Amino acid sequence: MDRALPQSVNEFDLIARLTPTLATNPSVVVPAGDDCAVLEAGWPDRYLLFKTDAVVEGIHFTADTEPRRVGHKALARCLSDIAAMGGTPWSAVVTLALPDDWKVGWVEECYVGLNTLASRYQVAIVGGETTTNPERLLLNIAALGTVPKDRCVSRAGAKAGDAIFVTGELGGSLEGRHLDFAPRLSEAQWLASHFQIHSMIDLSDGLAGDLRHVLNSSHVGAELFTDSIPISRAARLRSRSRASSKTPLEAALSDGEDFELLFTLASKDAVPLLDAWKQAFPDLRLGCIGKVTAASGLILRSKQGVQPLNALGYVHFEKS
Amino acid sequence: MDRALPQSVNEFDLIARLTPTLATNPSVVVPAGDDCAVLEAGWPDRYLLFKTDAVVEGIHFTADTEPRRVGHKALARCLSDIAAMGGTPWSAVVTLALPDDWKVGWVEECYVGLNTLASRYQVAIVGGETTTNPERLLLNIAALGTVPKDRCVSRAGAKAGDAIFVTGELGGSLEGRHLDFAPRLSEAQWLASHFQIHSMIDLSDGLAGDLRHVLNSSHVGAELFTDSIPISRAARLRSRSRASSKTPLEAALSDGEDFELLFTLASKDAVPLLDAWKQAFPDLRLGCIGKVTAASGLILRSKQGVQPLNALGYVHFEKS
Repeated sequence: MDRALPQSVNEFDLIARLTPTLATNPSVVVPAGDDCAVLEAGWPDRYLLFKTDAVVEGIHFTADTEPRRVGHKALARCLSDIAAMGGTPWSAVVTLALPDDWKVGWVEECYVGLNTLASRYQVAIVGGETTTNPERLLLNIAALGTVPKDRCVSRAGAKAGDAIFVTGELGGSLEGRHLDFAPRLSEAQWLASHFQIHSMIDLSDGLAGDLRHVLNSSHVGAELFTDSIPISRAARLRSRSRASSKTPLEAALSDGEDFELLFTLASKDAVPLLDAWKQAFPDLRLGCIGKVTAASGLILRSKQGVQPLNALGYVHFEKS
Repeated sequence: MDRALPQSVNEFDLIARLTPTLATNPSVVVPAGDDCAVLEAGWPDRYLLFKTDAVVEGIHFTADTEPRRVGHKALARCLSDIAAMGGTPWSAVVTLALPDDWKVGWVEECYVGLNTLASRYQVAIVGGETTTNPERLLLNIAALGTVPKDRCVSRAGAKAGDAIFVTGELGGSLEGRHLDFAPRLSEAQWLASHFQIHSMIDLSDGLAGDLRHVLNSSHVGAELFTDSIPISRAARLRSRSRASSKTPLEAALSDGEDFELLFTLASKDAVPLLDAWKQAFPDLRLGCIGKVTAASGLILRSKQGVQPLNALGYVHFEKS
């Protein structure tokens, strides 16, 4: 579910109503509602992953965004979802809905962005439907991936006592990261192959919102350690420059489109993970930011005490 | 390529420019440009089919079209493409881009249409991304199917001397068929399993346009027998009522969205096919409408002589 959906009716209610009604068949291992659908494809050792996602002009990029970055972002979002399952991307199809004033050069540049990213991960682009959307450009990608059956990670496996980890630094993605991020494919595959990851999601709706998806799917709660949440330089700059009315911490909790990995694993694995991570990915921060609790709800713990996060995934602190 | 694309720049030129640049990998058997992409999935006897397609409010349906029919049409278009490869559909993911004034009831009814059709063919709907498209609704479906390796039919196999066949009756789809058609899955699977079908396509752009796709892909030409082209009652009614300025024959040649099967096979198989078809599908017309020629180009032959079809796939007769 996209954070940009109009809010006049609750989007999560809508999805909750629709999901149980969806047509199914015996191949469905994980249905709609996770980062990707997981399908039994008859392979001995792997599942098929299937994902669709769209970016829309004026919502996910602007009319003056460089078209290469639009193509990059559209595909990278799908690859990030495949990463969040522990998977490897395989192929993708593109639907380009063009406005009345579309330009050939724009489309060609957009495809340069798509192809460059696809080639980096040996993803084949095997379809290019084109249609009309008079007022604005919309670019939809559907992507396939594969994942070893014993390394497929869903949102639903978080257990009370798990340590909660996040890669990178959060917030302020609008400064540029949302257009240029690299999907965390190798990191996620490494995690799923070296550790027993209980649950994983990519951060598209913001830390608080996406953690809530994990908690709801897993029927648990969580406590976040305020001082451990990694705040990006961009979030600090935006706050200082008043480009955003959020404090840096609020931005890290609620800004969307970080496209980092949020995952949980048994707390006994936390220190071995941090040690091994430093060897494997010395240039990418990994932080333990909290723990999973048996009690439902999402709580922020700081030196000053504890504070629940409200229902919208947004925490109202006084701006300091 | 969608017939509704703005024509300010030639859409086929654009696709022709983009297709060779697409990122690829060794699994691609048939790349972008056919009804579906065909992928080697490591199965001994089947290929994977992959397709994406969108319907847009104001283009493929109107704001007052019943939402169930919108859902039906969106999925049926993809299933028709899977049929045209000789395939069986498997699963689908849905992207719903909602306008600012979207209604929950509309979305639920649309999903009834999607689910009803999906269930009929044991297709699992495994993803439901939702986003914003402020001015109009857009519904994208990406679908997977499978096809036996020895029965996979592309557009590219038409041979000089082949007989050209079409199912059903053509033209006037706007009267209602474009919203309610049943994809020709069982018919196409029957054809591919009982006969050596050289090439096949589903009619979305209109007979002349889609036949031209087959001819271009196969590097051949064709002669159509004017008097054999099956004209729908809807096309005749529209012409008589002046709902369309086309003659019935023009409508049958150029109206889009018939979603019938157009295919070619060796002329020696034509009579056995017609005999077997009557047994298998007594209620669905099958007609031999022409022959494939070594010489390129598309010609109409009637009692009055021959006439080339012009470049737009539209033939200008005097309205009788």
